[in-house]
Amino acid sequence: MAADGIAIVAGRGALPRLIAEDCRRRRIPYRVVIFEGVTLDWLPGHPVLHEIFEKPGKLFADLRGAGCGVVTFAGGMTRPKLKPTRFDFKFIGMAPRLLSGLKAGDDATLRMVAEIFEAEGFRIRAPHEILRGLLVAPGVASRLHPGPADRVDTDRAFAIVTALGAADVGQCAVVAQGLCLGLESIQGTDAMLEFVAATGAAYRRDPAGGRGVLYKGPKPGQDWRIDLPAIGPETIRRAAAAGLAGIAVQAGGVLMIGREDCLATADAAGLFLWGYEPEPAEEETA
Amino acid sequence: MAADGIAIVAGRGALPRLIAEDCRRRRIPYRVVIFEGVTLDWLPGHPVLHEIFEKPGKLFADLRGAGCGVVTFAGGMTRPKLKPTRFDFKFIGMAPRLLSGLKAGDDATLRMVAEIFEAEGFRIRAPHEILRGLLVAPGVASRLHPGPADRVDTDRAFAIVTALGAADVGQCAVVAQGLCLGLESIQGTDAMLEFVAATGAAYRRDPAGGRGVLYKGPKPGQDWRIDLPAIGPETIRRAAAAGLAGIAVQAGGVLMIGREDCLATADAAGLFLWGYEPEPAEEETA
Repeated sequence: MAADGIAIVAGRGALPRLIAEDCRRRRIPYRVVIFEGVTLDWLPGHPVLHEIFEKPGKLFADLRGAGCGVVTFAGGMTRPKLKPTRFDFKFIGMAPRLLSGLKAGDDATLRMVAEIFEAEGFRIRAPHEILRGLLVAPGVASRLHPGPADRVDTDRAFAIVTALGAADVGQCAVVAQGLCLGLESIQGTDAMLEFVAATGAAYRRDPAGGRGVLYKGPKPGQDWRIDLPAIGPETIRRAAAAGLAGIAVQAGGVLMIGREDCLATADAAGLFLWGYEPEPAEEETA
Repeated sequence: MAADGIAIVAGRGALPRLIAEDCRRRRIPYRVVIFEGVTLDWLPGHPVLHEIFEKPGKLFADLRGAGCGVVTFAGGMTRPKLKPTRFDFKFIGMAPRLLSGLKAGDDATLRMVAEIFEAEGFRIRAPHEILRGLLVAPGVASRLHPGPADRVDTDRAFAIVTALGAADVGQCAVVAQGLCLGLESIQGTDAMLEFVAATGAAYRRDPAGGRGVLYKGPKPGQDWRIDLPAIGPETIRRAAAAGLAGIAVQAGGVLMIGREDCLATADAAGLFLWGYEPEPAEEETA
């Protein structure tokens, strides 16, 4: 049994499906791991392991039995409500660590989960290490390019997200004409863009000025192997509905889910998509 | 003519009216300065100077003529759209400075306005230096007190607002059970509380946990003489509508507009009102 099989711990969204399809295409052995409470409509045709949070002993045994030595976490998951009557011996042995870890912030919880898998001998790999082309590359990917006002707004939004990151909050902000129109809280990017769509129009004072930029990037404390921010076609549609000029994301630090669809959506809506590099590359000396 | 008269540059809200009434009660000479575009319904019975932004020469002459050597800025104002055909000589002489200052961030613009008045020989005084009891004092003012979970949420919200302040954005945040449910952008506190009311309920995972706290405090770069954050009865009503447990504001750094009304509203809604001190007072040694 090959221990280089990949276990895809599947959450919401298109990412786990894209990885599973990629594994199938490239004939890499894989299993889709579904925890109770996660509903996915793309499972038929894929090899699946059904698991529950309370029984990590069964999970590890299933993974070993399927030859999966590699684990990747793909797509958002909701924090589970645990039923203590179902705990297995493995869970009870790790209980103090698990229970305090689940009460911590998102970053700390995910780091704990990764460490538990590693202690069991599994290797953690990021989705973008398995599926090529997932990370946004430096430079403008869309037909439309950001103008000078958009670049100023992007710099400002980057500075704001960086400041927010120091408090372990949010991964994105909207800035138009120098004014901050939106900051991401726990409700996420879509909710913030809806807020901007409903309330932001009155604050673009200069009709000739920038229409605003959504900037998104990882927080400083994030474990890039298990949790990177992502954008998809829906992000782009909502940014367009909020009247923005485009989207800038930290180059190499944000996943673009469904690249073709994203680019087509951006070009159709007249938005730019920009892999932003906060520090300009230093010039090489001859 | 007494040069210790007070010119109240009146913006939105109840604050300028409260200062004017206080001056009248204490028989301090004063004028209410109304700029074009500001509409106020409480003016009858008060001595008023009508001014336009394009003619600072007229404004300064009117203030001197009325014996107003002291100027206080009270209530929010919208950035003016200037009509160049109306500029007076004074404006034209200060034009480069004025026009670049008006394009800067709020803090920078207000600092410039203050400096211009000072260069003309006027003294700037903060609303709370004229109207006693306006600043929120340390300690709990409401009947209800914050519980242990509320205190943890307040510390977290304070840390978040402090981080935001480094980027010159926002003066408040909402935190419940450790999760950030709202961050203030240019739309202001009321719009943020409306967002929390619409989207925040699903994120209070523990029914026995804290219902959430609104924290508000000044930004690090703010000029306390001309621009302090404020709360009023409407803030408290909206915090209650958002399902929060209470409001914490930086003690000594936030104005409470209409103190009696605020306390009655908070007590009726079952919210705490807390003058928060970020650093615990050091113990005195004998």
